[in-house]
Amino acid sequence: MAGDMRQPRIVLVNTSHPGNIGATARAMKNMGLEQLCLVSPQHYPSAEATARASGADDLLARASCYASLDEALVDATLVIGASARCRTLPLPLLDPRACAELAMAQADSTHVAVVFGCERTGLSNDELDRCHYLVQIPSNPEYPSLNLAAAVQVIAYELRLAAGTAALEPQGEPDYASAGQLEQFYAHLEQTLIELEFLDPENPRQLMRRLRRLFGRARPDQNEINILRGILTAAAKSAR
Amino acid sequence: MAGDMRQPRIVLVNTSHPGNIGATARAMKNMGLEQLCLVSPQHYPSAEATARASGADDLLARASCYASLDEALVDATLVIGASARCRTLPLPLLDPRACAELAMAQADSTHVAVVFGCERTGLSNDELDRCHYLVQIPSNPEYPSLNLAAAVQVIAYELRLAAGTAALEPQGEPDYASAGQLEQFYAHLEQTLIELEFLDPENPRQLMRRLRRLFGRARPDQNEINILRGILTAAAKSAR
Repeated sequence: MAGDMRQPRIVLVNTSHPGNIGATARAMKNMGLEQLCLVSPQHYPSAEATARASGADDLLARASCYASLDEALVDATLVIGASARCRTLPLPLLDPRACAELAMAQADSTHVAVVFGCERTGLSNDELDRCHYLVQIPSNPEYPSLNLAAAVQVIAYELRLAAGTAALEPQGEPDYASAGQLEQFYAHLEQTLIELEFLDPENPRQLMRRLRRLFGRARPDQNEINILRGILTAAAKSAR
Repeated sequence: MAGDMRQPRIVLVNTSHPGNIGATARAMKNMGLEQLCLVSPQHYPSAEATARASGADDLLARASCYASLDEALVDATLVIGASARCRTLPLPLLDPRACAELAMAQADSTHVAVVFGCERTGLSNDELDRCHYLVQIPSNPEYPSLNLAAAVQVIAYELRLAAGTAALEPQGEPDYASAGQLEQFYAHLEQTLIELEFLDPENPRQLMRRLRRLFGRARPDQNEINILRGILTAAAKSAR
């Protein structure tokens, strides 16, 4: 996997322990992954991160830092969130092997992101709303929550295995909308629903989250997003 | 795997960093393994080991300590040594998956030991002489050597999968909309798009087919269909 371009990115959100950032860099480099994205790490840069990275300090030095998850995902077309527990509002659930096979089957895996939340609480609902799938590492139900870098290690290991077995010929694949294009669509959708008086901004309930989940599952391509936004424009015009 | 008797032991030989012992305990407990054997750890017990064990300090407290590898292996019937590199005196080489399948296929896996050498040098030739097989984790040839606890994490993960406890919690299946409900939705959608003058019935092109494909991929549930039809009703009302 090292040196080729078919590399999913690993996104760590709001990590609290810098040692975990360093250990993640090492786990990634061991498995031949190179794209590390840090969203608002709580303590970084840090001597502890560098120490735990060991010989992977080059990867750490090249890590991209972002102020928000949206910025880290702006060009991502497949976003997989890591989760230690079952969620009440479920996304499609993958085990690490299926996750890796899906990620490596994309035409350009550089647009795949696997996202890990902060150590204590994992991904927030708002962060999960950006994900198309969840990946869950099988674990002891009485003690399910892996150390952050250990979880990255398992996923990176499966990505390496899948890279070795993935078909060399990438499949012809839809021109998926990026996360940034999806966010623009959701903003447009929300604004239109307010104009239609279908969505009450004072009492939004779960409406946008439900719609995000629905459209997220469909993974719209760019042409479909254009059609949907055309419909929104037509609806808003007649509402005025 | 937790609670049953088919548990291989993990043997750490001459570990130099107590943090790695603690992180190993956590990785094992996460994967439902319980038998940790320590052979001449360089600094142990240690507050750092306990801290890194996190909620797995019970497993650490029950770890067996030995003065020599032979004592730790006295009742073992299958010994697999972990190795980061190819050895000149080769033993049969397994990848982690084959290692786990072999270990879990034994009549009594409590007599299986997976042995990890010290961080800097791995297993000595003398220690390798005790092993029946080597297990090697696939890794980046330019940076092959995993952190000790990360290596245990990968092996323990494969052991858990091989133990057959890997099945994810069964998900309650969504209350999918029926084909009939979907057809009613598509008819409603088409009618609304005509009222919005977005769809020209004289020249429909491929619009409905494209939208069918999009929503069909999402597999909406009944609640989502109700939301979508509510939006259509609101849009048609303002168009009038």
